[in-house]
This record gives sequence, C-alpha cells and structure tokens, in this order.
Amino acid sequence: MRYEAVFMLPALIVSLIYNGDDRNSFIYTMLILILFGTLLANIKPSDSKFRSKEGFVAVALSWVTLSLFGALPFYFSGYFNSYIDCVFEAASGFTTTGASILEAVEPLPKGILFWRSFTHWIGGMGVLVFMLALMPNLKASAVNLLKAESPGPSPSKIVPKIRETAKIMYIIYFFMTVAHIILLVLTGMPLYDSLIHAFGSAGTGGFSSRNISVGAYNNPAAEIIIGVFMLLFGINFTLYFYLLKKNFKGFFLDEELLIYIGLVTASVIAITVQIFNIYGDFFTSLRHAFFQVSSVVTTTGYSSVDFNTWPTLSKAILVMLMFTGCCAGSTGGGIKMIRILILFKGIKSEIYKVIHPKIVNTIKVNKIKADEEIVNKVFMFFFVYFAILGMSVLIVSLDGKDLITTVTAVIATLSNIGPGLEIVGPMGNFSSFSNLSKIILTFCMIAGRLEFYPVLLLFAPSIWRKGAF
Amino acid sequence: MRYEAVFMLPALIVSLIYNGDDRNSFIYTMLILILFGTLLANIKPSDSKFRSKEGFVAVALSWVTLSLFGALPFYFSGYFNSYIDCVFEAASGFTTTGASILEAVEPLPKGILFWRSFTHWIGGMGVLVFMLALMPNLKASAVNLLKAESPGPSPSKIVPKIRETAKIMYIIYFFMTVAHIILLVLTGMPLYDSLIHAFGSAGTGGFSSRNISVGAYNNPAAEIIIGVFMLLFGINFTLYFYLLKKNFKGFFLDEELLIYIGLVTASVIAITVQIFNIYGDFFTSLRHAFFQVSSVVTTTGYSSVDFNTWPTLSKAILVMLMFTGCCAGSTGGGIKMIRILILFKGIKSEIYKVIHPKIVNTIKVNKIKADEEIVNKVFMFFFVYFAILGMSVLIVSLDGKDLITTVTAVIATLSNIGPGLEIVGPMGNFSSFSNLSKIILTFCMIAGRLEFYPVLLLFAPSIWRKGAF
Repeated sequence: MRYEAVFMLPALIVSLIYNGDDRNSFIYTMLILILFGTLLANIKPSDSKFRSKEGFVAVALSWVTLSLFGALPFYFSGYFNSYIDCVFEAASGFTTTGASILEAVEPLPKGILFWRSFTHWIGGMGVLVFMLALMPNLKASAVNLLKAESPGPSPSKIVPKIRETAKIMYIIYFFMTVAHIILLVLTGMPLYDSLIHAFGSAGTGGFSSRNISVGAYNNPAAEIIIGVFMLLFGINFTLYFYLLKKNFKGFFLDEELLIYIGLVTASVIAITVQIFNIYGDFFTSLRHAFFQVSSVVTTTGYSSVDFNTWPTLSKAILVMLMFTGCCAGSTGGGIKMIRILILFKGIKSEIYKVIHPKIVNTIKVNKIKADEEIVNKVFMFFFVYFAILGMSVLIVSLDGKDLITTVTAVIATLSNIGPGLEIVGPMGNFSSFSNLSKIILTFCMIAGRLEFYPVLLLFAPSIWRKGAF
Repeated sequence: MRYEAVFMLPALIVSLIYNGDDRNSFIYTMLILILFGTLLANIKPSDSKFRSKEGFVAVALSWVTLSLFGALPFYFSGYFNSYIDCVFEAASGFTTTGASILEAVEPLPKGILFWRSFTHWIGGMGVLVFMLALMPNLKASAVNLLKAESPGPSPSKIVPKIRETAKIMYIIYFFMTVAHIILLVLTGMPLYDSLIHAFGSAGTGGFSSRNISVGAYNNPAAEIIIGVFMLLFGINFTLYFYLLKKNFKGFFLDEELLIYIGLVTASVIAITVQIFNIYGDFFTSLRHAFFQVSSVVTTTGYSSVDFNTWPTLSKAILVMLMFTGCCAGSTGGGIKMIRILILFKGIKSEIYKVIHPKIVNTIKVNKIKADEEIVNKVFMFFFVYFAILGMSVLIVSLDGKDLITTVTAVIATLSNIGPGLEIVGPMGNFSSFSNLSKIILTFCMIAGRLEFYPVLLLFAPSIWRKGAF
C-alpha cells in the first residue's frame, strides 16, 4: 500500500502542473494508503512460513487491494457514478484490461487520466514479476519451460536469480517505454498524450485520453508506431535477454514467437482483403487491419477504427485472437500462444498414439521435452478459462443485453483486452451494465490476469478455515 | 451398404401406402446399395488384423458412406436443390442432429419424410453400439467407467459380452420407441406423425414432419410426452439395465443422472420465471421451458415455440446446454454430463493439491476411482471440441452471416442438436449457407457424433500411407 502511494506521485505532479481540481483526490488517497500501510506493516504474522498457497493467496489479495485503493482518486474526484465504477476502472487499469465504464473521457482532469493510464504501466510491471515468481509453481507457462532450460547451456544461466532477472526485465520495460514515448512525440503527438498511449501499449492496457481512442489523432505514423510497440510488448520478455546476449538464433527460432508472428501475419492479410472494399485503398486497409490485429492479439484494446462495422469473418478472426492472446512472459493476457501450441501438440500426440500404440511419443517445445504434467495443466487451464467464461456469461446475461455484447464483454475482461463487440465495441463502454455485472467483470479481469489459480484458491473453503496458514 | 438397403424397406412401404411419387427413389437407391455392397463384400483384405486404428477408421468411413448413400433417395426425389444438400440432410439424420436445409418440409412426399426421420432412429441405434464397442478404447466415457466397474459386484457382470449388451440395449430402445408411439397416438396425433416424432425423440434427432416442429400440433399433451421421452432417451442406457435388474439405488444414485436432473430442473425453473411475462400463464411457461430445455439438453432440437424471441439469459442457458449435452451412453450428443462432471472434479482436485501438496487426492465418479489417463483425455476432449468449433466458425463466417447465426450453427451441428439461434433458430433452416459451409457443417455433425477421434484420425497423413494397415 505504501508502494501504491509512491506510484501516485507522478499523477499528483501532473495534476499540479495542469492545476486541476483533482489534486486533493491524490493527496487524500496517499494519506490513507500511508496510514493503513504503516498500521498493517506493524502486524507480525504468527507463522512466517511462506509456501505456494500463501504465495497464491497473497498475490490474489494484493491485486484486489491495489484495485480497491487505486479506485480512491477516481472516487474522490467526483467524476464517477459510484465506488463500484471506480473499482472497475482501477482493476481494469492494474490488470491492463482497458475496459472503461466512462461514457466520455475527455472532460476528466489530466491528473486522473494520467493515473488511470499509469495503472496500466504499473500493472504491466507487476505481471512481469508475477510470471517470474509464481508461474514456475503452476508449471504451465513458457517461463517454466525456459526455467527448465536454464541448467543447460543457455543465456539465462548468466542471471539465475529471480531478483536479478526482474531487474533486467524492468530495465528493458523502462527503456522500451521511453523509446515509445520519444517516437510518438516525434510524430507530432503532444507529450501528455504520448505518455498516456505509451503506458497503455507497454502494459498492453488500452486506456486512451480520447473517446475514440488512437483513431482520434488522424496520425497514421503514430498508429503504425503504437501498432508495432503493442506487438513488441506482447513478446516474451525472456526473449529480449537473448537479443541482449546476441543470441539471435534463440530469439528468432523460438516456436512461440514464430506462431505469434505467423498468426498475426495471416490475420492481417485476411482482414486487409476483406476491408479493402470499406476503405478503398490498400495501404489504409493494411494499416487498419494491422493496428486492430496488433491491438487485439496483444490484448491491448486500442482502436484506430470501429471494427464493429467490419465483415463477419474479420470479426470472427478478432474474437479468436481475443481467446489466444499473445506470448507468455509478456504484459499481455489471454490463453497465450505457447499454451495454444502445447494444446495442439498434445492432440497431435494423442492421435499418433492411436496409430502407433507401441511408440513412445513426447511433446517438445523449442526442442525441449515438455513434462506430461505441464501438458495436462495446460489442458486444465483451457477448461477453466471456458468454465469461468460460461458462468460469467450466465450472470451478465441477466442484464438482458444482446448475446454478442454479453459474451464479448466477458471475453474482453477475462482475456484483459478491453473492448468487445456491439455495445462494448471499440467506440462503446461498460457504463450501462448493472452493478452485479460490473463486479463479475471486475472479478474476470483479476482472475484472467492472475491466470485463475490464485483467484480460484480464494474460493476453496479450507483456505478460510482457522489455522489454514 | 446391404444393411442400409434393408433399412430403406419401411420407407418404401410407406411410399407405396401413400402412393407417392418417391417410390422409384427408394427402389433405385436400394438396387445401387445391393450392387455396390455385394461387389465390395467380395474383396478380401490382405491383412485381416483389426486393431483400434482400423476400428476408428472403419467407423468414421462407415458413417460417411451411410450418409453419402442415404442421400440418394432425397436426390432422386427431385425435391432437393443439390446433392450436397441431400448429403447434409442424410448426415443430419444419421448423426441424429436434425439440422435441415429444407425451407419447407410439408410439400415433400410421405415416404421421403419417413426415410428422413427413420435415419434418426437408425443413427440412434448405431450410436448405442458405437459407444459400447469403441468407447472403452478411448477411455473417455461413462461406459468405460462402468466397464471398469464390471469385475466387481455389479449388475452388468451378468451380461459381460458386448454383443449380448447391445442386444439388450436394442430391446430397450425398441420398446421405449413403441411406448412413445402409442402414447402419442393416444393424444390424438395421427399415426404417421407419431412415428416421425417418436423416431426423432428416440434418436434425439429432431426432424419433424411440420415446418414449425412440434408447436404445429397445438397439442400440450403430446408436447409433454415428447419432452419426457426426449429426457428418457438422454439417459445412459446402461442405467436401464439397473432398473431391469431392480437395482434402484444404482439408478437413482448415479452421479451423472443426478447432475443431469439437477441441471434440467434448474434451467427449467430459471427460464419459466423469465418467460412468464411472455406467456402470462404459469403452466404454459413451464411447459414451454420444459420442452425447450429437454429438447436442447438432449440435443434433439424439437421446438414448441420460437426461443429466438426469449430473453438473453434464457438464450444463454440454452446455449450452455447445447455445449453440455446429456448423458454418455445415450443417443444424445454434446460434451456429455459425465465429462463436465469430471472436468470440474479435476479442477477441484488441482486446487486441493496446491493447498495440501502432500496429500494424494484422487478423483472418484460413482465412488469409483477415475484413472488419471481418463481424466486427462476428458480435458483433451474439451479442447478438441472448441478447436474444431473455432476453425469451423472461421470458415462458415466467410458466408457473412451474423456472428450468432454462424457460431450457433456450428455448435448446433457439432453437438448434434439441429437448430441454433437467429437464421438457424427453431423456425429457420440451413438452406442459405454456401456449399462450403454445408460441407463443413456436415463434417461437424459426423465429427461430433463420433466424438472426434475417429474423424481426426482420417486427417493423419500416416493413415493414408501405403502399408499403414
């Protein structure tokens, strides 16, 4: 909580620079955070053991706490309808979702909008560490596969400690963001707007300072730069180690990266062909197809045009990409390319077993044998995704909105994308949902961000029993 | 093929009784079937070994053959637009899907309509045997769980041979169909229509002799009878053994049956509450809710009203039931209740493992330990379902129909239901799809019916290599 107070400083400074009426919102919140944080820090736990269940619960609760208190500046500012709306917006920020309950963002003070986008950047940082620290326990991610690799002759051996690795990741993250800001400013975008959109791309979040998102600037150069940077932030950050260590083969032959590039390219080509009739010009169609694909596959959620009006196949492709998401170990959400890869390899191996029952067939990713337990957990992950999707759709459909809105709203929050289709399309927002739906969708954002298990653990009755820890 | 010729006899008789212009369609087809069948039966295989891969390929190809030749009477009758339409309709019949490309069924001759519905009844029989004969190899069904049970003190020990079991299942299937026909005739439904709807319910198919399905009769008693019988045909047939052996505990305490009854009851109550405003009368609402839930959960596809006009939550519930389907070992389709049960138990066990890493936790169904391999295969099955769904949606969306039509058309064929929502809703049909989409949807029907693996095997390159068998 005291960290969160520190994170609020930049927003306070922005507020002071623009002399906005949101100054006190930050000061009050920071005081509350410091007060509570100091009080809680003085409580000494009776049992200081920290096993994986404590890790899971701590992570889940810290994201909830971050959102509950990160919502306070919004609440104090008076621009939001209810505290639930504020928590939705803050959770959407920290989980780098980018779904908004605001009908119009432009009337809001600069400090508040800065904080809103800065939560993306903090959230992106948080996810990078979370992946490093907790994912190996889940045995379900590429990071784990890469960890399994590290005893061998690989570059990551050089930085074996998580703390060290995290530091290097932060440095990469920081400099990529700075490069992004500079490039945006060079296209003529104002510095403030450049900051907002660089934070949104870096965290693959998607909050914009404009109602109609990136499209509002009529700035093709900025669209291309944001499109490229979204894709870059959707790559496994461990791969950037390889680049730093000049291991270009390790980078370019990474199976997940190849699938990622392949899927993006195929989607862009397919959509360009279909929307050519709408925009009448090859390069405009290509740019819009590229921007929207990049935005959706990385689960960022920026838009340069309203893809709600595109043909059915284009929308179907975008919805598929909403499920897949980008690479593990990036700031993006969704099921992740590596999991999709493992799922298909698992099925292929299963069919192989029927044809050749006597031959032992193992699944390999990047030429390394994938542990059977990892493969099973990936299949379980896939089911959990759809189980939570299904149950959330049932509750949200109580609002009586059309099925496409209902289903894509849940996908957009569960995959941490932001916009869906129809009412929650790129030009729409989540304001018209009931409070119950907003709470469910907030849950989806946090559950999706933490890849389910830490959040599901909170629902296990035995976790709340006295003496469980 | 010679069996198929025999199966066509009843339709030929119906055609002769009504003196329809479809008589020759059957005679020509039967001659072709007997000719080809006799020629092929004379080919002696060089290798007579029959392993599980031969089993899979034989089953997949036999359903394809059945559909290709079962389409001939439709084609010769001249009432269909193309041979592709005829194959779609025949596959829809044999797979007990019930999706139709006919814009109007009433103008068709009685013999053709009889054959169309009779394919459901044959398909239902085929599925019951298929489950018995092949499912144990897949290790993914309740039947297999029950098989694992049979060495113990269980009633199925009395009939250990598959051939014997199949015979008893056929007898149960036959007498349940007869009872259904008699009850329908007693409600005042004409004998011909009673036969059509009894075949459709028994196979959980859904072809009707009326455009607006069962709703056309304005016969509440018939609706209730069909609703109840659809549910009965959606129960695992092995459980009827238990009843015959007076093992009521085994029947009523079956976990899959309890989940099935629970889910149906909950869905009926939820929908009744919501549609009360539409029909204004409790019993009418209850009847319509019950009929539609029973029809969708058993993947039959009959309708008494147009549920396209129902509120979003009701539609969302029906779409969920389209995924789950009914019980394994029945004539119904979908993912199956037992799999859903195992999926949730698998996740519960996974969470338990994180909290209590040292305690060995096994998944039990009906108090019997489920083999870990079975559990893993169920998770794989779930992914394959959605992978085929996703890829089919991409191709079908080329037609440019709205997303709801596109997605529910694929679900309705993959789960062997029949109607979906919007254009393919209960009052709609599949006639407006392109030939490519019709072929894909036909593939989905057969793939869904055979639970994927036999059909996926046909796509493995090594199966087609010389000497693979």
